[in-house]
Amino acid sequence: MSTPLQRAPKGLEGVIVSSTKISKIDGQAGKLIYRGYDITELAGKVSFEAVAHLLLLGHYPDAKELESFKKRLAENRYVSNKVMAFIGTAPRDANPLAMLRTAVSLIGMQAREDISTLDAAISLTAQFPTVLAMFHNSRRGRSAVLPRGDLGHAANYLYMLTGMVPKEKHTRALDAYLTLLADHGFNSSTFSARVAISTLTDVYSAVIAAIGTLKGPLHGGAPSQVWDMLQAVGDPARATSWLTERLKKGERIMGFGHRIYRTEDPRSKVLKMLAKENSDPKIFALATTVESEAIRLLHEEHPERPLDTNVEFYSSLVLNAVGIPPDMFTPTFASARVVGWTSHIMEQLSDNRIIRPSAEYVGPEGLTLSG
Amino acid sequence: MSTPLQRAPKGLEGVIVSSTKISKIDGQAGKLIYRGYDITELAGKVSFEAVAHLLLLGHYPDAKELESFKKRLAENRYVSNKVMAFIGTAPRDANPLAMLRTAVSLIGMQAREDISTLDAAISLTAQFPTVLAMFHNSRRGRSAVLPRGDLGHAANYLYMLTGMVPKEKHTRALDAYLTLLADHGFNSSTFSARVAISTLTDVYSAVIAAIGTLKGPLHGGAPSQVWDMLQAVGDPARATSWLTERLKKGERIMGFGHRIYRTEDPRSKVLKMLAKENSDPKIFALATTVESEAIRLLHEEHPERPLDTNVEFYSSLVLNAVGIPPDMFTPTFASARVVGWTSHIMEQLSDNRIIRPSAEYVGPEGLTLSG
Repeated sequence: MSTPLQRAPKGLEGVIVSSTKISKIDGQAGKLIYRGYDITELAGKVSFEAVAHLLLLGHYPDAKELESFKKRLAENRYVSNKVMAFIGTAPRDANPLAMLRTAVSLIGMQAREDISTLDAAISLTAQFPTVLAMFHNSRRGRSAVLPRGDLGHAANYLYMLTGMVPKEKHTRALDAYLTLLADHGFNSSTFSARVAISTLTDVYSAVIAAIGTLKGPLHGGAPSQVWDMLQAVGDPARATSWLTERLKKGERIMGFGHRIYRTEDPRSKVLKMLAKENSDPKIFALATTVESEAIRLLHEEHPERPLDTNVEFYSSLVLNAVGIPPDMFTPTFASARVVGWTSHIMEQLSDNRIIRPSAEYVGPEGLTLSG
Repeated sequence: MSTPLQRAPKGLEGVIVSSTKISKIDGQAGKLIYRGYDITELAGKVSFEAVAHLLLLGHYPDAKELESFKKRLAENRYVSNKVMAFIGTAPRDANPLAMLRTAVSLIGMQAREDISTLDAAISLTAQFPTVLAMFHNSRRGRSAVLPRGDLGHAANYLYMLTGMVPKEKHTRALDAYLTLLADHGFNSSTFSARVAISTLTDVYSAVIAAIGTLKGPLHGGAPSQVWDMLQAVGDPARATSWLTERLKKGERIMGFGHRIYRTEDPRSKVLKMLAKENSDPKIFALATTVESEAIRLLHEEHPERPLDTNVEFYSSLVLNAVGIPPDMFTPTFASARVVGWTSHIMEQLSDNRIIRPSAEYVGPEGLTLSG
């Protein structure tokens, strides 16, 4: 008859809600695998398009497949006039993720009813950078920079944001960043996309749910805060006193620790290397000092906690170095993760059951209006 | 150290993810309770505003509280010029829930940064009917009908949709419908709102996640399909043959069965009574014939399954009788459920932990690009 109820730990921590073939997080070993490939095999070595193909289509593309996939992405970069008009009239101080969420909702309203989930996934992946760059130019009072079909995904994003064709090494760094952030198991935004699509809603609704979830500071909101912290510290010599004061007040130090990794976040290692290659040496020196001092102080306070830098810490340096403004860090994260979201949406649809948990009612009973 | 992983049943069925004081569903007894009050104590007896106060503020209002809460809702019905302009230029054939999702995203972009969750909840509850009615009038080429502060929530919604002050009994029927649909435990849309807000995102993002989730046919999408089915059957005399043919083809009959209730859905009983009082007697006779024939035929096929009509079946009759067009059935459901969503958002925030489950990786490992 009815299934016996079982109580899950708070936040569903450690609860396996599904099988997946998309990514594996090995928190003990500090490994992240995309469809069989360790991310260190991919990041910095292949283009983001190759990784998107791997995640969305399930296998690493051969040269011909990659060429055709790149072309398909490039052809899908344009957004409609209506979406452009919305972006052009959005308030300059609008939150970029709220703007992106609204733009995607408009894109969804205009999409063909019969578009396949894969086609929608590819066109959203192609359009996120366009939406973000158009907004950034518009709020700066600059004219729109149209996408350039001869540039790859990462290079074109930087080109649209800055108006200049980026240096080769900046393109490679952004390709690596986007690769590292493309998927990460059943994180909150991916899970909300899966909950939404489990009702058989449209792919846009599920992606919008994910954008809104990523917007929360406990999920996607920290990379710009790391940047703000480094700016506030200012000088390596001030790191210890600044951090000590914060900890004394019971405040959180941004960019350290992760619910899943018990050792160094594998993405963090690659990002640190990219930061070293691309950042102003002064900023990199500041960051490494803050890193080692924060770890030392945090370890003194909580010797039992694993407290390495997480993905957000060096992300902020890499994104800054390639020319992305701080309030575009999380939207750029979204531009990577949309590939993961839509891969999970397709996986959920391939073997769906509506996601609908239970709750234990602990309120009063038997109240009456006359009573 | 790290929590041992446990595997949850598919769709998290029967898994208690949290405690709640908002609503209790007793699937065995066929009861639904809002903060201590059985819904049969409320539906048809009190205004939707009183129920919204109960759910959002945690207690049933006294006369003075109710008056001030009604005033607060009435004062919040207007939407900004920008939102009106969006609604006025939305394509006539836009999906009303996609339109609502976009409008709420725009409302969120314009909201004050420091708005309290309760204030946002109240203003969204007040604005949903305005957004929907404005769209309905706009797509029909009619001019906008502005909200009327002297009418209650349900009456004003019908007034804005139809341009006429509704009959007292229609207002009462819609008040009852909105009451019955205002909350229902950890359904998928409510759960997606809780997942989203668990990252401490803004309330608008969480409500948008919920709207997008409700849009799926496995969740909010069926009431208009019940209506379509009744139109297709057309005559009670055709019910048996029409249903038999459908079942022979393996097609689903809309409006029957529910994952949770093992007996009659308590909302269904009230809705049937409201349908009897408000529908054209011919349509009501058709519906009751389809109901009894469908239950008989489904029971022959699956004697083990509990197969009463669910909330969607008689909803369609009630909503039609009070003057709501079929494609506005689910958006009207959203207008009721926004109270539940925002109540759950506040409850999640009051004792939050980020909702982030795990998954079991079942794909390949150890692949290399050189291999």
